[in-house]
Amino acid sequence: MEDIVYFGDTARVPYGVKSVDTIGQFTAQITDFLLQQDVKMLIVACNTMAAVAAEVVRQRAGDIPVLDVIEAGARAAVAEAPGGRIGVIGTPTTVNSNAYARRIHALDPTVRVYSHACSLFVPLVEEGWLDHEVTRLTAQEYLRPVLAEEVDGLVLGCTHYPLLKPLLRDVVGPGVKLIDSASTTADFAAASLQAAGLAHVSELPARYRYVVTDVPLRFQTIGERFLGRSLGKVEKVDW
Amino acid sequence: MEDIVYFGDTARVPYGVKSVDTIGQFTAQITDFLLQQDVKMLIVACNTMAAVAAEVVRQRAGDIPVLDVIEAGARAAVAEAPGGRIGVIGTPTTVNSNAYARRIHALDPTVRVYSHACSLFVPLVEEGWLDHEVTRLTAQEYLRPVLAEEVDGLVLGCTHYPLLKPLLRDVVGPGVKLIDSASTTADFAAASLQAAGLAHVSELPARYRYVVTDVPLRFQTIGERFLGRSLGKVEKVDW
Repeated sequence: MEDIVYFGDTARVPYGVKSVDTIGQFTAQITDFLLQQDVKMLIVACNTMAAVAAEVVRQRAGDIPVLDVIEAGARAAVAEAPGGRIGVIGTPTTVNSNAYARRIHALDPTVRVYSHACSLFVPLVEEGWLDHEVTRLTAQEYLRPVLAEEVDGLVLGCTHYPLLKPLLRDVVGPGVKLIDSASTTADFAAASLQAAGLAHVSELPARYRYVVTDVPLRFQTIGERFLGRSLGKVEKVDW
Repeated sequence: MEDIVYFGDTARVPYGVKSVDTIGQFTAQITDFLLQQDVKMLIVACNTMAAVAAEVVRQRAGDIPVLDVIEAGARAAVAEAPGGRIGVIGTPTTVNSNAYARRIHALDPTVRVYSHACSLFVPLVEEGWLDHEVTRLTAQEYLRPVLAEEVDGLVLGCTHYPLLKPLLRDVVGPGVKLIDSASTTADFAAASLQAAGLAHVSELPARYRYVVTDVPLRFQTIGERFLGRSLGKVEKVDW
Protein backbone atom coordinates (compact mmCIF):
# COMPACT_ATOMS: atom_id res chain seq x y z
CA MET A 1 0.00 0.00 0.00
CA GLU A 2 1.47 3.33 -1.05
CA ASP A 3 0.91 6.61 0.80
CA ILE A 4 -0.55 9.29 -1.46
CA VAL A 5 -0.28 13.09 -1.47
CA TYR A 6 -3.02 14.34 -3.78
CA PHE A 7 -2.96 17.96 -4.97
CA GLY A 8 -6.10 19.54 -6.47
CA ASP A 9 -5.87 23.09 -7.82
CA THR A 10 -9.54 23.73 -7.11
CA ALA A 11 -9.13 27.54 -6.99
CA ARG A 12 -8.01 27.65 -10.62
CA VAL A 13 -9.77 24.73 -12.31
CA PRO A 14 -10.85 23.95 -14.96
CA TYR A 15 -7.52 23.80 -16.86
CA GLY A 16 -9.00 22.37 -20.05
CA VAL A 17 -9.97 25.71 -21.58
CA LYS A 18 -6.85 27.63 -20.51
CA SER A 19 -3.67 28.43 -22.41
CA VAL A 20 -0.52 26.33 -22.51
CA ASP A 21 1.47 29.18 -20.87
CA THR A 22 -0.85 29.50 -17.91
CA ILE A 23 -1.06 25.74 -17.38
CA GLY A 24 2.75 25.56 -17.49
CA GLN A 25 3.04 28.25 -14.82
CA PHE A 26 0.49 26.55 -12.50
CA THR A 27 2.17 23.18 -13.13
CA ALA A 28 5.61 24.45 -12.05
CA GLN A 29 4.15 25.78 -8.80
CA ILE A 30 2.34 22.52 -8.00
CA THR A 31 5.36 20.34 -8.90
CA ASP A 32 7.57 22.32 -6.53
CA PHE A 33 4.99 21.91 -3.75
CA LEU A 34 4.83 18.13 -4.23
CA LEU A 35 8.62 17.79 -4.42
CA GLN A 36 8.82 19.54 -1.03
CA GLN A 37 6.62 16.73 0.36
CA ASP A 38 9.47 14.32 -0.37
CA VAL A 39 7.56 12.10 -2.81
CA LYS A 40 9.26 9.17 -4.58
CA MET A 41 7.18 9.37 -7.76
CA LEU A 42 5.04 12.03 -9.41
CA ILE A 43 1.90 11.14 -11.34
CA VAL A 44 0.45 13.80 -13.64
CA ALA A 45 -3.14 12.70 -13.17
CA CYS A 46 -4.79 15.52 -15.15
CA ASN A 47 -4.96 14.90 -18.88
CA THR A 48 -4.74 18.58 -19.78
CA MET A 49 -1.61 19.07 -17.68
CA ALA A 50 -0.13 15.84 -19.08
CA ALA A 51 -0.93 17.02 -22.63
CA VAL A 52 0.78 20.40 -22.45
CA ALA A 53 3.02 20.52 -19.36
CA ALA A 54 4.40 17.03 -18.62
CA GLU A 55 7.86 18.32 -19.61
CA VAL A 56 7.60 21.09 -17.01
CA VAL A 57 7.10 18.39 -14.37
CA ARG A 58 9.93 16.18 -15.71
CA GLN A 59 12.43 19.05 -15.80
CA ARG A 60 11.76 20.00 -12.20
CA ALA A 61 11.53 16.40 -10.93
CA GLY A 62 15.14 15.53 -11.84
CA ASP A 63 15.75 11.87 -10.89
CA ILE A 64 12.27 11.28 -9.46
CA PRO A 65 10.19 9.20 -11.90
CA VAL A 66 7.22 10.97 -13.51
CA LEU A 67 4.23 9.07 -14.93
CA ASP A 68 1.37 10.67 -16.76
CA VAL A 69 -2.15 9.68 -17.76
CA ILE A 70 -1.57 10.28 -21.46
CA GLU A 71 1.34 7.84 -21.64
CA ALA A 72 -0.80 5.26 -19.82
CA GLY A 73 -3.89 5.98 -21.98
CA ALA A 74 -1.85 5.73 -25.19
CA ARG A 75 -0.43 2.33 -24.13
CA ALA A 76 -3.91 1.06 -23.27
CA ALA A 77 -5.29 2.29 -26.59
CA VAL A 78 -2.59 0.57 -28.62
CA ALA A 79 -3.01 -2.65 -26.60
CA GLU A 80 -6.77 -2.53 -27.22
CA ALA A 81 -6.70 -1.85 -30.95
CA PRO A 82 -3.29 -2.53 -32.51
CA GLY A 83 -3.25 -1.15 -36.03
CA GLY A 84 -6.84 -0.02 -35.52
CA ARG A 85 -8.92 3.14 -35.28
CA ILE A 86 -8.99 5.03 -31.98
CA GLY A 87 -11.19 7.93 -30.90
CA VAL A 88 -9.96 10.35 -28.24
CA ILE A 89 -12.18 12.75 -26.31
CA GLY A 90 -10.85 15.37 -23.93
CA THR A 91 -10.84 19.05 -23.05
CA PRO A 92 -10.18 21.64 -25.79
CA THR A 93 -6.58 22.16 -24.60
CA THR A 94 -5.86 18.41 -24.54
CA VAL A 95 -7.37 17.84 -27.98
CA ASN A 96 -5.68 20.88 -29.52
CA SER A 97 -2.29 19.73 -28.20
CA ASN A 98 -2.55 16.51 -30.24
CA ALA A 99 -0.66 14.79 -27.40
CA TYR A 100 -2.61 11.51 -27.53
CA ALA A 101 -2.05 11.11 -31.27
CA ARG A 102 1.69 11.76 -30.83
CA ARG A 103 2.08 9.25 -28.00
CA ILE A 104 -0.07 6.62 -29.75
CA HIS A 105 1.89 7.00 -32.98
CA ALA A 106 5.19 6.69 -31.13
CA LEU A 107 3.99 3.25 -29.97
CA ASP A 108 2.23 2.19 -33.19
CA PRO A 109 2.41 4.42 -36.27
CA THR A 110 -0.34 2.43 -38.02
CA VAL A 111 -3.12 3.36 -35.55
CA ARG A 112 -5.55 6.03 -36.84
CA VAL A 113 -6.56 8.63 -34.24
CA TYR A 114 -9.74 10.77 -34.35
CA SER A 115 -10.16 13.38 -31.60
CA HIS A 116 -12.96 15.63 -30.46
CA ALA A 117 -13.05 18.26 -27.68
CA CYS A 118 -15.96 17.83 -25.27
CA SER A 119 -15.95 21.12 -23.30
CA LEU A 120 -19.26 20.55 -21.57
CA PHE A 121 -18.54 17.13 -20.06
CA VAL A 122 -16.61 18.53 -17.05
CA PRO A 123 -19.39 20.96 -16.05
CA LEU A 124 -22.04 18.27 -16.65
CA VAL A 125 -20.20 15.85 -14.34
CA GLU A 126 -19.76 18.57 -11.70
CA GLU A 127 -23.50 19.32 -11.95
CA GLY A 128 -24.11 15.62 -11.24
CA TRP A 129 -26.07 15.09 -14.46
CA LEU A 130 -24.45 11.71 -15.03
CA ASP A 131 -27.58 10.09 -16.45
CA HIS A 132 -29.53 13.05 -17.80
CA GLU A 133 -31.16 13.71 -21.15
CA VAL A 134 -29.07 16.89 -21.56
CA THR A 135 -25.85 14.91 -21.11
CA ARG A 136 -27.04 12.22 -23.52
CA LEU A 137 -27.85 14.80 -26.23
CA THR A 138 -24.52 16.53 -25.66
CA ALA A 139 -22.63 13.23 -25.92
CA GLN A 140 -24.49 12.30 -29.11
CA GLU A 141 -23.52 15.61 -30.68
CA TYR A 142 -19.86 15.49 -29.61
CA LEU A 143 -19.38 11.83 -30.54
CA ARG A 144 -21.17 11.87 -33.90
CA PRO A 145 -18.03 12.79 -35.95
CA VAL A 146 -15.84 10.33 -34.01
CA LEU A 147 -18.33 7.45 -34.36
CA ALA A 148 -18.66 8.22 -38.08
CA GLU A 149 -15.01 7.12 -38.35
CA GLU A 150 -16.00 3.64 -37.10
CA VAL A 151 -13.49 3.62 -34.27
CA ASP A 152 -12.63 0.40 -32.40
CA GLY A 153 -11.98 2.16 -29.09
CA LEU A 154 -12.59 5.51 -27.44
CA VAL A 155 -10.06 6.98 -24.98
CA LEU A 156 -11.75 8.87 -22.12
CA GLY A 157 -9.03 11.53 -22.12
CA CYS A 158 -10.09 13.53 -19.06
CA THR A 159 -10.31 12.43 -15.43
CA HIS A 160 -13.96 13.49 -15.21
CA TYR A 161 -15.18 11.30 -18.05
CA PRO A 162 -15.13 7.86 -16.38
CA LEU A 163 -18.12 9.04 -14.32
CA LEU A 164 -20.03 9.21 -17.63
CA LYS A 165 -19.10 5.63 -18.60
CA PRO A 166 -22.60 4.09 -18.40
CA LEU A 167 -24.07 6.90 -20.53
CA LEU A 168 -21.17 6.87 -23.01
CA ARG A 169 -21.45 3.07 -23.28
CA ASP A 170 -25.07 3.55 -24.49
CA VAL A 171 -24.12 6.33 -26.90
CA VAL A 172 -21.14 4.56 -28.53
CA GLY A 173 -22.84 1.16 -28.69
CA PRO A 174 -21.37 -2.30 -28.00
CA GLY A 175 -18.77 -2.27 -30.81
CA VAL A 176 -16.58 0.43 -29.28
CA LYS A 177 -14.31 -0.31 -26.32
CA LEU A 178 -14.09 2.50 -23.72
CA ILE A 179 -10.48 3.10 -22.62
CA ASP A 180 -10.13 4.67 -19.20
CA SER A 181 -6.65 6.07 -18.57
CA ALA A 182 -7.27 6.33 -14.79
CA SER A 183 -7.16 2.62 -13.98
CA THR A 184 -4.39 2.05 -16.55
CA THR A 185 -2.31 4.75 -14.85
CA ALA A 186 -2.72 3.12 -11.45
CA ASP A 187 -1.61 -0.27 -12.83
CA PHE A 188 1.29 1.35 -14.64
CA ALA A 189 2.37 3.20 -11.47
CA ALA A 190 2.33 -0.03 -9.42
CA ALA A 191 4.37 -1.85 -12.08
CA SER A 192 6.87 1.03 -12.37
CA LEU A 193 7.40 1.17 -8.60
CA GLN A 194 7.99 -2.60 -8.53
CA ALA A 195 10.41 -2.42 -11.46
CA ALA A 196 12.35 0.44 -9.85
CA GLY A 197 12.49 -1.33 -6.47
CA LEU A 198 10.52 1.56 -4.96
CA ALA A 199 7.35 -0.30 -3.90
CA HIS A 200 6.29 0.06 -0.29
CA VAL A 201 6.04 -3.39 1.29
CA SER A 202 4.37 -2.47 4.62
CA GLU A 203 1.01 -4.03 5.43
CA LEU A 204 -0.11 -0.88 7.24
CA PRO A 205 -3.06 0.92 5.69
CA ALA A 206 -2.06 3.64 3.23
CA ARG A 207 -2.15 7.24 4.36
CA TYR A 208 -3.86 9.81 2.13
CA ARG A 209 -3.30 13.56 2.18
CA TYR A 210 -5.64 15.71 0.10
CA VAL A 211 -4.28 19.22 -0.52
CA VAL A 212 -6.37 21.78 -2.42
CA THR A 213 -6.27 25.50 -3.21
CA ASP A 214 -9.98 26.04 -2.56
CA VAL A 215 -12.75 24.19 -0.78
CA PRO A 216 -15.69 25.15 -2.96
CA LEU A 217 -19.38 24.70 -2.21
CA ARG A 218 -19.83 21.21 -3.51
CA PHE A 219 -16.28 19.93 -2.98
CA GLN A 220 -17.24 17.13 -0.58
CA THR A 221 -20.11 15.92 -2.81
CA ILE A 222 -18.05 15.92 -5.99
CA GLY A 223 -14.92 14.48 -4.35
CA GLU A 224 -16.83 11.60 -2.80
CA ARG A 225 -18.65 10.95 -6.07
CA PHE A 226 -15.22 10.45 -7.68
CA LEU A 227 -13.68 8.37 -4.90
CA GLY A 228 -16.76 6.34 -4.09
CA ARG A 229 -15.95 6.81 -0.38
CA SER A 230 -15.51 9.43 2.33
CA LEU A 231 -12.80 12.04 1.71
CA GLY A 232 -11.67 12.58 5.28
CA LYS A 233 -9.58 15.64 6.12
CA VAL A 234 -8.69 18.11 3.38
CA GLU A 235 -5.84 20.65 3.69
CA LYS A 236 -6.06 24.02 1.98
CA VAL A 237 -3.05 26.04 0.79
CA ASP A 238 -3.38 29.75 -0.01
CA TRP A 239 -1.60 30.93 -3.16
CA MET B 1 -17.08 59.15 -23.25
CA GLU B 2 -15.28 57.48 -20.37
CA ASP B 3 -11.97 55.60 -20.66
CA ILE B 4 -12.24 52.03 -19.39
CA VAL B 5 -9.73 49.67 -17.81
CA TYR B 6 -11.30 46.21 -17.93
CA PHE B 7 -9.79 43.38 -15.87
CA GLY B 8 -10.67 39.76 -16.65
CA ASP B 9 -9.27 37.03 -14.39
CA THR B 10 -9.30 34.48 -17.21
CA ALA B 11 -6.65 32.24 -15.60
CA ARG B 12 -8.90 31.56 -12.60
CA VAL B 13 -12.46 31.77 -13.94
CA PRO B 14 -15.14 30.62 -13.41
CA TYR B 15 -15.72 32.16 -9.96
CA GLY B 16 -19.33 30.99 -9.65
CA VAL B 17 -18.53 27.56 -8.22
CA LYS B 18 -15.69 28.68 -5.91
CA SER B 19 -15.72 29.51 -2.21
CA VAL B 20 -16.32 32.91 -0.65
CA ASP B 21 -12.79 32.89 0.86
CA THR B 22 -11.05 32.27 -2.45
CA ILE B 23 -13.16 34.83 -4.30
CA GLY B 24 -12.37 37.37 -1.57
CA GLN B 25 -8.63 36.74 -1.96
CA PHE B 26 -8.73 37.10 -5.77
CA THR B 27 -10.91 40.21 -5.45
CA ALA B 28 -8.43 41.96 -3.15
CA GLN B 29 -5.61 41.33 -5.62
CA ILE B 30 -7.62 42.64 -8.60
CA THR B 31 -8.89 45.69 -6.70
CA ASP B 32 -5.33 46.68 -5.80
CA PHE B 33 -4.28 46.32 -9.43
CA LEU B 34 -7.10 48.57 -10.67
CA LEU B 35 -6.49 51.18 -7.95
CA GLN B 36 -2.86 51.38 -9.18
CA GLN B 37 -4.25 52.35 -12.61
CA ASP B 38 -5.58 55.54 -11.02
CA VAL B 39 -9.26 54.89 -11.73
CA LYS B 40 -11.99 57.30 -10.55
CA MET B 41 -14.68 54.64 -10.09
CA LEU B 42 -14.70 50.88 -9.67
CA ILE B 43 -17.48 48.73 -11.11
CA VAL B 44 -17.79 45.19 -9.81
CA ALA B 45 -19.10 43.77 -13.06
CA CYS B 46 -19.14 40.10 -12.06
CA ASN B 47 -22.26 39.04 -10.19
CA THR B 48 -20.47 36.38 -8.15
CA MET B 49 -17.81 38.85 -6.97
CA ALA B 50 -20.53 41.44 -6.26
CA ALA B 51 -22.52 38.84 -4.30
CA VAL B 52 -19.75 37.74 -1.94
CA ALA B 53 -16.88 40.23 -2.11
CA ALA B 54 -18.25 43.74 -2.83
CA GLU B 55 -17.21 44.74 0.70
CA VAL B 56 -13.63 43.67 -0.01
CA VAL B 57 -13.61 46.13 -2.92
CA ARG B 58 -15.24 48.94 -0.90
CA GLN B 59 -12.82 48.59 2.00
CA ARG B 60 -9.79 48.85 -0.27
CA ALA B 61 -11.26 51.58 -2.50
CA GLY B 62 -11.58 54.16 0.31
CA ASP B 63 -13.08 57.35 -1.18
CA ILE B 64 -13.34 56.02 -4.72
CA PRO B 65 -16.97 55.18 -5.54
CA VAL B 66 -17.76 51.49 -6.06
CA LEU B 67 -20.78 50.30 -8.06
CA ASP B 68 -21.83 46.72 -8.44
CA VAL B 69 -24.09 44.76 -10.74
CA ILE B 70 -26.21 43.37 -7.92
CA GLU B 71 -27.13 46.80 -6.62
CA ALA B 72 -28.06 47.82 -10.17
CA GLY B 73 -29.96 44.58 -10.84
CA ALA B 74 -31.89 44.86 -7.59
CA ARG B 75 -32.95 48.45 -8.43
CA ALA B 76 -34.06 47.38 -11.90
CA ALA B 77 -36.02 44.44 -10.48
CA VAL B 78 -37.89 46.60 -7.98
CA ALA B 79 -38.63 49.23 -10.66
CA GLU B 80 -39.97 46.50 -12.94
CA ALA B 81 -42.19 44.71 -10.44
CA PRO B 82 -42.84 46.78 -7.31
CA GLY B 83 -44.47 44.57 -4.68
CA GLY B 84 -44.31 41.71 -7.16
CA ARG B 85 -42.64 38.35 -7.65
CA ILE B 86 -39.07 38.23 -8.95
CA GLY B 87 -37.00 35.27 -10.10
CA VAL B 88 -33.21 35.42 -9.91
CA ILE B 89 -30.88 33.09 -11.77
CA GLY B 90 -27.11 33.07 -11.26
CA THR B 91 -24.10 30.93 -10.42
CA PRO B 92 -24.22 28.61 -7.37
CA THR B 93 -22.10 31.02 -5.30
CA THR B 94 -24.30 34.02 -6.20
CA VAL B 95 -27.52 32.16 -5.45
CA ASN B 96 -26.22 30.65 -2.20
CA SER B 97 -25.12 34.09 -0.99
CA ASN B 98 -28.73 35.33 -1.13
CA ALA B 99 -27.31 38.74 -2.09
CA TYR B 100 -30.04 39.63 -4.62
CA ALA B 101 -32.84 38.91 -2.15
CA ARG B 102 -31.13 41.02 0.52
CA ARG B 103 -30.61 44.00 -1.81
CA ILE B 104 -34.11 43.75 -3.28
CA HIS B 105 -35.68 43.57 0.19
CA ALA B 106 -33.67 46.58 1.35
CA LEU B 107 -35.38 48.54 -1.46
CA ASP B 108 -38.83 46.94 -1.21
CA PRO B 109 -39.56 44.42 1.55
CA THR B 110 -42.82 43.34 -0.12
CA VAL B 111 -41.18 41.84 -3.22
CA ARG B 112 -41.02 38.00 -3.24
CA VAL B 113 -37.74 36.56 -4.54
CA TYR B 114 -37.27 33.04 -5.98
CA SER B 115 -33.72 32.03 -6.94
CA HIS B 116 -32.18 29.14 -8.80
CA ALA B 117 -28.52 28.32 -9.56
CA CYS B 118 -27.82 27.63 -13.23
CA SER B 119 -24.28 26.16 -13.19
CA LEU B 120 -24.28 25.05 -16.79
CA PHE B 121 -25.22 28.36 -18.43
CA VAL B 122 -21.65 29.77 -18.30
CA PRO B 123 -20.08 26.72 -20.00
CA LEU B 124 -22.95 26.59 -22.53
CA VAL B 125 -22.37 30.24 -23.46
CA GLU B 126 -18.61 29.67 -23.72
CA GLU B 127 -19.27 26.66 -25.98
CA GLY B 128 -21.31 29.01 -28.18
CA TRP B 129 -24.48 26.92 -27.88
CA LEU B 130 -26.65 30.03 -27.62
CA ASP B 131 -29.53 28.57 -29.63
CA HIS B 132 -29.11 24.84 -29.14
CA GLU B 133 -31.51 22.11 -28.09
CA VAL B 134 -29.20 21.17 -25.18
CA THR B 135 -29.30 24.75 -23.86
CA ARG B 136 -33.08 24.89 -24.28
CA LEU B 137 -33.59 21.64 -22.31
CA THR B 138 -31.17 22.85 -19.62
CA ALA B 139 -33.01 26.18 -19.32
CA GLN B 140 -36.37 24.44 -19.11
CA GLU B 141 -35.12 22.26 -16.27
CA TYR B 142 -33.48 25.10 -14.33
CA LEU B 143 -36.38 27.52 -14.77
CA ARG B 144 -39.24 25.10 -14.04
CA PRO B 145 -39.30 25.76 -10.25
CA VAL B 146 -38.91 29.53 -10.72
CA LEU B 147 -41.68 29.74 -13.36
CA ALA B 148 -43.95 27.64 -11.11
CA GLU B 149 -43.89 30.64 -8.74
CA GLU B 150 -45.50 32.79 -11.47
CA VAL B 151 -42.81 35.46 -11.35
CA ASP B 152 -43.31 38.86 -13.02
CA GLY B 153 -39.64 39.31 -13.86
CA LEU B 154 -36.45 37.26 -14.06
CA VAL B 155 -33.07 38.81 -13.15
CA LEU B 156 -30.25 37.50 -15.35
CA GLY B 157 -27.83 37.47 -12.43
CA CYS B 158 -24.62 36.58 -14.27
CA THR B 159 -22.78 38.52 -16.98
CA HIS B 160 -22.88 35.53 -19.34
CA TYR B 161 -26.65 35.17 -19.33
CA PRO B 162 -27.68 38.12 -21.56
CA LEU B 163 -26.21 36.15 -24.49
CA LEU B 164 -28.97 33.61 -23.83
CA LYS B 165 -31.73 36.24 -23.91
CA PRO B 166 -33.50 35.09 -27.11
CA LEU B 167 -33.60 31.48 -25.89
CA LEU B 168 -34.64 32.46 -22.34
CA ARG B 169 -37.36 34.71 -23.78
CA ASP B 170 -38.87 31.63 -25.48
CA VAL B 171 -38.57 29.49 -22.35
CA VAL B 172 -40.09 32.00 -19.90
CA GLY B 173 -42.86 33.14 -22.26
CA PRO B 174 -44.20 36.66 -22.89
CA GLY B 175 -45.51 37.27 -19.35
CA VAL B 176 -42.09 37.43 -17.70
CA LYS B 177 -39.84 40.48 -18.07
CA LEU B 178 -36.12 39.69 -18.43
CA ILE B 179 -34.00 42.00 -16.28
CA ASP B 180 -30.44 42.43 -17.47
CA SER B 181 -28.17 43.97 -14.85
CA ALA B 182 -25.45 44.79 -17.41
CA SER B 183 -27.25 47.64 -19.16
CA THR B 184 -28.73 48.85 -15.87
CA THR B 185 -25.24 49.02 -14.38
CA ALA B 186 -23.95 51.10 -17.30
CA ASP B 187 -26.84 53.59 -16.93
CA PHE B 188 -26.33 53.70 -13.17
CA ALA B 189 -22.58 54.33 -13.60
CA ALA B 190 -23.22 57.23 -16.02
CA ALA B 191 -25.76 58.79 -13.64
CA SER B 192 -23.46 58.36 -10.64
CA LEU B 193 -20.53 59.98 -12.42
CA GLN B 194 -22.75 62.92 -13.42
CA ALA B 195 -24.09 63.28 -9.88
CA ALA B 196 -20.60 63.21 -8.39
CA GLY B 197 -19.28 65.72 -10.94
CA LEU B 198 -16.85 63.08 -12.21
CA ALA B 199 -18.13 62.67 -15.77
CA HIS B 200 -15.59 63.05 -18.56
CA VAL B 201 -16.75 65.78 -20.97
CA SER B 202 -14.23 65.33 -23.79
CA GLU B 203 -15.53 64.50 -27.25
CA LEU B 204 -12.48 62.32 -27.97
CA PRO B 205 -13.20 58.65 -28.49
CA ALA B 206 -12.94 56.57 -25.34
CA ARG B 207 -9.81 54.50 -24.74
CA TYR B 208 -10.21 50.88 -23.71
CA ARG B 209 -7.59 48.73 -21.96
CA TYR B 210 -8.31 45.02 -21.62
CA VAL B 211 -6.14 43.31 -19.00
CA VAL B 212 -6.39 39.57 -18.43
CA THR B 213 -4.51 36.85 -16.53
CA ASP B 214 -4.67 34.32 -19.37
CA VAL B 215 -5.32 34.43 -23.09
CA PRO B 216 -7.04 31.09 -23.54
CA LEU B 217 -7.74 29.28 -26.80
CA ARG B 218 -11.05 30.85 -27.64
CA PHE B 219 -10.58 34.20 -25.90
CA GLN B 220 -10.90 36.32 -29.03
CA THR B 221 -14.04 34.50 -30.22
CA ILE B 222 -15.79 34.64 -26.86
CA GLY B 223 -14.73 38.23 -26.11
CA GLU B 224 -15.96 39.50 -29.44
CA ARG B 225 -19.20 37.56 -29.05
CA PHE B 226 -19.78 39.52 -25.83
CA LEU B 227 -18.74 42.93 -27.13
CA GLY B 228 -20.29 42.60 -30.55
CA ARG B 229 -17.11 44.17 -32.01
CA SER B 230 -13.36 43.69 -32.32
CA LEU B 231 -11.39 43.47 -29.06
CA GLY B 232 -8.17 45.16 -30.16
CA LYS B 233 -5.07 44.76 -28.04
CA VAL B 234 -5.21 42.65 -24.88
CA GLU B 235 -2.60 42.90 -22.08
CA LYS B 236 -1.70 39.88 -19.97
CA VAL B 237 -0.48 40.03 -16.37
CA ASP B 238 1.27 37.03 -14.77
CA TRP B 239 0.23 36.22 -11.24
